[in-house]
Amino acid sequence: MTTIEFEAVPAVEARPRTPGLVVMKFGGTSVGDTEKLKRVAARLVAAHDDGAKVVAVLSAMGKTTDELIRLAHEVSSNPHPREYDMLVSTGERISNALCAMAIHDLGHEAVSFTGSQAGIVTDDSHTKAKIVEVRAQRIHGALDENRIVLVAGFQGVSTATQDVTTLGRGGSDTTAVALAAALGADACEIFTDVAGVFTADPRIVPGALKLNSVTYEEMLEMSASGAKVMALRSIEVARSYGVKLRVRSTFVDGEGTWIGEEDDVVLEKAIISGVTHDTSEAKVTIVGVPDRPGIAAKVFRELAGAAVNIDMIVQNVSQDGAATISFTLPKTDVPIAEPILDRLREELGANRVEHDPDVAKISLIGAGMKSHPGVAADMFDALAEAGINIEIISTSSIRVSCVIRASQVERAVEVVHARFQSFAEERVNG
Amino acid sequence: MTTIEFEAVPAVEARPRTPGLVVMKFGGTSVGDTEKLKRVAARLVAAHDDGAKVVAVLSAMGKTTDELIRLAHEVSSNPHPREYDMLVSTGERISNALCAMAIHDLGHEAVSFTGSQAGIVTDDSHTKAKIVEVRAQRIHGALDENRIVLVAGFQGVSTATQDVTTLGRGGSDTTAVALAAALGADACEIFTDVAGVFTADPRIVPGALKLNSVTYEEMLEMSASGAKVMALRSIEVARSYGVKLRVRSTFVDGEGTWIGEEDDVVLEKAIISGVTHDTSEAKVTIVGVPDRPGIAAKVFRELAGAAVNIDMIVQNVSQDGAATISFTLPKTDVPIAEPILDRLREELGANRVEHDPDVAKISLIGAGMKSHPGVAADMFDALAEAGINIEIISTSSIRVSCVIRASQVERAVEVVHARFQSFAEERVNG
Repeated sequence: MTTIEFEAVPAVEARPRTPGLVVMKFGGTSVGDTEKLKRVAARLVAAHDDGAKVVAVLSAMGKTTDELIRLAHEVSSNPHPREYDMLVSTGERISNALCAMAIHDLGHEAVSFTGSQAGIVTDDSHTKAKIVEVRAQRIHGALDENRIVLVAGFQGVSTATQDVTTLGRGGSDTTAVALAAALGADACEIFTDVAGVFTADPRIVPGALKLNSVTYEEMLEMSASGAKVMALRSIEVARSYGVKLRVRSTFVDGEGTWIGEEDDVVLEKAIISGVTHDTSEAKVTIVGVPDRPGIAAKVFRELAGAAVNIDMIVQNVSQDGAATISFTLPKTDVPIAEPILDRLREELGANRVEHDPDVAKISLIGAGMKSHPGVAADMFDALAEAGINIEIISTSSIRVSCVIRASQVERAVEVVHARFQSFAEERVNG
Repeated sequence: MTTIEFEAVPAVEARPRTPGLVVMKFGGTSVGDTEKLKRVAARLVAAHDDGAKVVAVLSAMGKTTDELIRLAHEVSSNPHPREYDMLVSTGERISNALCAMAIHDLGHEAVSFTGSQAGIVTDDSHTKAKIVEVRAQRIHGALDENRIVLVAGFQGVSTATQDVTTLGRGGSDTTAVALAAALGADACEIFTDVAGVFTADPRIVPGALKLNSVTYEEMLEMSASGAKVMALRSIEVARSYGVKLRVRSTFVDGEGTWIGEEDDVVLEKAIISGVTHDTSEAKVTIVGVPDRPGIAAKVFRELAGAAVNIDMIVQNVSQDGAATISFTLPKTDVPIAEPILDRLREELGANRVEHDPDVAKISLIGAGMKSHPGVAADMFDALAEAGINIEIISTSSIRVSCVIRASQVERAVEVVHARFQSFAEERVNG
């Protein structure tokens, strides 16, 4: 039976295949109440009736996990990680068991598995465990009996301790992709409350277009720069194992957006896959740092040591030989970073540390950008015409990101999307 | 390590002993919210500080299980038993994990186990599984590390299928008693919202007395006749394995009531351990049954085949050769019994079947009754003096039960308790 080792090891080339198998993942809003759970059940039954072997991964219902976390903080100022995982892993067991009941009610056979029963083996890093292996015997057994298989997302079991673990943020996506890889599924479908991946947030840009396909790299950059469609880590696992992904709507039928290798994705004249934005970061500026070698290294090594996630960094040196270092970090990491920065300011003899929560990041992403050097300049130009000041710039081979004032983010998305609208249309319409 | 086989096999004589070990069970109202959970945590820590090895079994918080059952019925008219167990077993995992966190917050080490992790092995009868074995290795390991061990009540794992099972009504009591037996605990303490076992329901009889001790047999009769202190099945297991039980209050310090062998319990002049009552049963009367051999057998065999629980039975034969059969059954079994009785009425040529939900049962219990033959007559006399008509009588060697009108049950408990007050006082005061 299938045993594949996962996140801890490099990708394997040859993986087993199970033709006709599809892994279908449904997020918390897709299973928000029992009525929605019944619709998901009907959708799984329809796929099974169409001849597919169906493995579904459901998140916890709506706010269940938040409610469990609230209870944990009521009994403990610092919930014990092992017990925290024992607690929050129950949410997915509830939704998956309920969905299995609903499928039985429709006259089909189904079985729900905990992460442990499904063979999701992890390391023992509670609250942020990594999948090291999938032992898929029970799933194969149930599929051979023609059952629809439901797997509780976001969780596994540590072989070292036999304890329940959870995978951290976006864990259900990771469960689904890991299962698709281990089982050799034809595809891993991520069901969500939007119709696919768009060229910009449709709530801000009503003319945003749904993409038919994007590359893994584009999707990684889009997720890293604010698109909330899929968790970053799950896209990395999909790319490593060549799992074809498809993002589609739970509630409306449609093709959705395919995510795969560049060869599978029609690029042609298409340069841009989308504009993303992110208001979850803050900007920190250290003013008047002595301009000596190793200062920046010291700052970022200490922050990394406290697991603070630094995103964009710029450093300027002024006339008088003092440097200014600016960087962005998640707002949630600011309380961890503050005492470290206060100490560093004294140690380094810097003038002051400024915290600025009122920033936003806007990014332009497209695999075609590699061969079109004018894209970044066009983006800066569009922002300048709209009177939007750029505070920090960062680029990769397929992305350009700018930090701007938070109050200007919607306008920025509009004008950048409008500037690249024609490229987006070419891509979508071929 | 300890492995004891359970409900499926006869009691074993020699069981291992773990001196200083106490199993403490807390019901749903004792862990109704996070404040109460923290008080339970403090109580466990206090016992541990006093030198005890502590294994606690917690039920689900307050209405959690009811809420999960409500969800199950929203998605399915007839929830699949395996998935039902997967669903409702989460309630105890939540309360036990939260309590473990609260104990850590008090600076002590604790670990919560699912039924499966605790080694509670059952048969595969979902929703009403029986414990067949306790594999206590992980519990012993955690106790050896000086941890407080928490075990999710009411659940286990089937070795045949590796699926989660639940033990049915009163399952957490059964878990606690089975663990106390397997681990060789000094005692199994059942914490509840009353101070112990009383000579009558204190809400009806303000002068009811708390008993210092009762025998297993008395407690079995009291539970079977309406006392809600402990589940019947768990008392049977305790008696089989000689587990000393103690019923006490979660919220008020006190000695509670010990339950053990007759030798351990001071009987002396004490005849009566209590008056119980039960309004959960209905009475059915089949009128005009031909008086032929085998008729009653046929009726009760068919009802037993449908798993209807019959309690008391009387049969009278009138002058004209037709018999009247009356019996009591749980009100919840009436919908199952009705169609069977309608069919039997036709087959047997009986006149009619009468259903009467407005009945109550009052019982007088006491191990000393065996050697005091006048007790039943005294009870009938007390009821007669109060103008209360007796419709059915049933007796065992240590119990007398009478079916009366439901509207008269409180008065009946008062007058019977008053008649035997002096015996009860002798017993309690020695």
